[in-house]
Amino acid sequence: MTDLLWKVFRLLQIQALTVGRELTFGSSVQVQGQLVKSQSKRQNVELKAEKIEVIGDCEAKAFPIKYKERHPLEYLRQYPHLRCRTNALGSILRVRSEATAAIHSYFKDNGFVHIHTPVLTSNDCEGAGELFQVEPSSKIKVPEENFFDVPAFLTVSGQLHLEVMSGAFTQVFTFGPTFRAENSQSRRHLAEFYMVEAEMSFVESLQDLMQVMEELFKATTEMVLSHCPEDVELCHQFIASGQKGRLEHMLKNNFLIISYTEAIEILKQASQNFAFTPKWGVDLQTEHEKYLVRHCGNIPVFVINYPSELKPFYMRENEDGPQNTVAAVDLLVPGVGELFGGSLREERYHVLEQRLARSGLTKAYQWYLDLRKFGSVPHGGFGMGFERYLQCILGVDNIKDVIPFPRFTHSCLL
Amino acid sequence: MTDLLWKVFRLLQIQALTVGRELTFGSSVQVQGQLVKSQSKRQNVELKAEKIEVIGDCEAKAFPIKYKERHPLEYLRQYPHLRCRTNALGSILRVRSEATAAIHSYFKDNGFVHIHTPVLTSNDCEGAGELFQVEPSSKIKVPEENFFDVPAFLTVSGQLHLEVMSGAFTQVFTFGPTFRAENSQSRRHLAEFYMVEAEMSFVESLQDLMQVMEELFKATTEMVLSHCPEDVELCHQFIASGQKGRLEHMLKNNFLIISYTEAIEILKQASQNFAFTPKWGVDLQTEHEKYLVRHCGNIPVFVINYPSELKPFYMRENEDGPQNTVAAVDLLVPGVGELFGGSLREERYHVLEQRLARSGLTKAYQWYLDLRKFGSVPHGGFGMGFERYLQCILGVDNIKDVIPFPRFTHSCLL
Repeated sequence: MTDLLWKVFRLLQIQALTVGRELTFGSSVQVQGQLVKSQSKRQNVELKAEKIEVIGDCEAKAFPIKYKERHPLEYLRQYPHLRCRTNALGSILRVRSEATAAIHSYFKDNGFVHIHTPVLTSNDCEGAGELFQVEPSSKIKVPEENFFDVPAFLTVSGQLHLEVMSGAFTQVFTFGPTFRAENSQSRRHLAEFYMVEAEMSFVESLQDLMQVMEELFKATTEMVLSHCPEDVELCHQFIASGQKGRLEHMLKNNFLIISYTEAIEILKQASQNFAFTPKWGVDLQTEHEKYLVRHCGNIPVFVINYPSELKPFYMRENEDGPQNTVAAVDLLVPGVGELFGGSLREERYHVLEQRLARSGLTKAYQWYLDLRKFGSVPHGGFGMGFERYLQCILGVDNIKDVIPFPRFTHSCLL
Repeated sequence: MTDLLWKVFRLLQIQALTVGRELTFGSSVQVQGQLVKSQSKRQNVELKAEKIEVIGDCEAKAFPIKYKERHPLEYLRQYPHLRCRTNALGSILRVRSEATAAIHSYFKDNGFVHIHTPVLTSNDCEGAGELFQVEPSSKIKVPEENFFDVPAFLTVSGQLHLEVMSGAFTQVFTFGPTFRAENSQSRRHLAEFYMVEAEMSFVESLQDLMQVMEELFKATTEMVLSHCPEDVELCHQFIASGQKGRLEHMLKNNFLIISYTEAIEILKQASQNFAFTPKWGVDLQTEHEKYLVRHCGNIPVFVINYPSELKPFYMRENEDGPQNTVAAVDLLVPGVGELFGGSLREERYHVLEQRLARSGLTKAYQWYLDLRKFGSVPHGGFGMGFERYLQCILGVDNIKDVIPFPRFTHSCLL
């Protein structure tokens, strides 16, 4: 009911009542009349307008959104300041708002403390993709000295800072912007995107982590479905036909669990030819992820226990001998691929110390070692890409359409 | 109950029960025993420990937090990775978490749509203080070309992006990080801080805006007080004695309203000598703000209708002749000074067009003019500094102590 376009669409039928400026598509209006029970099945009430005043008229010819036209999402992306007024973007962004609230509720109801992990950080060696660096604009061309005395970067993850907090609050979460300076135009990547991250102390098995991940996905989705069914319906009907059934299928089934080793075996036995030959010790590619999800009947699937070399220093070693895997988990979902990533963290001081030394990171991560020196606890956590989550439940193909103002290589409009 | 230190404090009394490693202050432990009704008035239940296992011991000598010592907040700031384990920071950060949830609730319950306004923006001329610029770290020293094709900055406010959204959703809010590259070591400024911002369509008077601002302050605070009374109590008792009464005084009184012109008159008649002589047409200084709040009996006071020249181009002109004020409002609160800033926005195309032209901003803000060309609506909004809000209710003197990881000139730890 708050969508201006929708209001105007209804009002065009009663143009005769208008006073003042011309009523065109895209105008803002004030309407006086009687709210009565509707005889239509598509709505409960309707407004019997007696007087319509045009508050702000609209230059309809110049307005890039046209009456009764269904504009492709690619076309609308050119107008980040106006596209939110269309039904499609309006619904997507209302769902985004409801999903945000649902995620906060889920964690609050389960006793997690919310933490604002910093956007600016001096941690630069986590190896999670290209970093953005930050300096005052006056200094960026001649950076003789840094504003913060050290180089400062935009965060790629709040995990390490959440680990700090999990030493005080047992269960913590963060939900904020993260950044990658990747030169990617893919439909699944942005330079600025949102991550939901959680960290839990006294967790000793991936099983416990996976349970929270599955619950978070399902509880959030159920809440969104019950709070804005019409908006979800609009997406499923006009943007991604068939998505409704696919989503129900995900919600009613238990997510599956396979090990990385099993995943490689499945891929090796596949009749399909892959561009990248699956091989133990090599990372899964998008084509592999897609195959695995289809192989699992389009039910989300957890892949666990990855080779140690493929993963960062903080993941907990499984002590499985020559295999040398770590307790890592990725959740793969239909249409999107990797949605969650998580792991148990290496809480043993001496093991962590050795791994940092091997990577030459001991000095930079002394503070991180401290967390293990002073009352260490077994703990683990995960992160979920929020835009990918929205793509997954709504069936929106391009990540640029589920965020209000997408930022990617060559584009930072407004 | 989740505070590790607190647990350990209790457990030291029953050290005889421990097995395994040495139980020292700061250790993490697993306790088995019976939960029974407590005979003490200070708690409802207590755990009769039968077995205590040390999960992670703590090098007590090296641990910078000492048993039974009350460390000054300045001292703790040196240890951003450990200070959250103290009672004081634990309470402050739990209050921060509750206040975050309360703010989300307030807006959701009142029909606002949540918007993630972007952190990266190409708007560079709003004049709201020094900007941070962003480039991939590999390019920062030789920036031949920009990653985004245009210079990109860290946001100083989500307002303009919220105005975009208010054209679709009527009432919107955002709650995220904002940045200023100011060379300030003040107890009220950070390089990275959080802002709560709201924008409302079809609002035509400052009165309506101020009502929402006062309600937001009071509703959020009441919710925090009811959800974590013990944490608030701890701050009021150990960090800011007398703050409890001051806060109750703020909550039970209606906030006051004076015009900028009246404020200048009050300051001119003050017996106090100011470092900056108060004068119509010149901005209020911190010393002036403090005086005004005391003059108003330590009740928060709205100051409205500022000279146009002091304020940015988007604020709505009051049409009051030679005075030439704009419909701007600041809320001043005891101890902190300016907590909220807001205004009606200039929704009239031709007035805005002229003001942009005068500032040479027409080209950069064509998209912003578009919002007035296509169905403009009277609207207004405000922003609240979240850390200052926490300082105000808890009585914490230094802003660096109410954010998990403070960033300011010369400091970006972790």
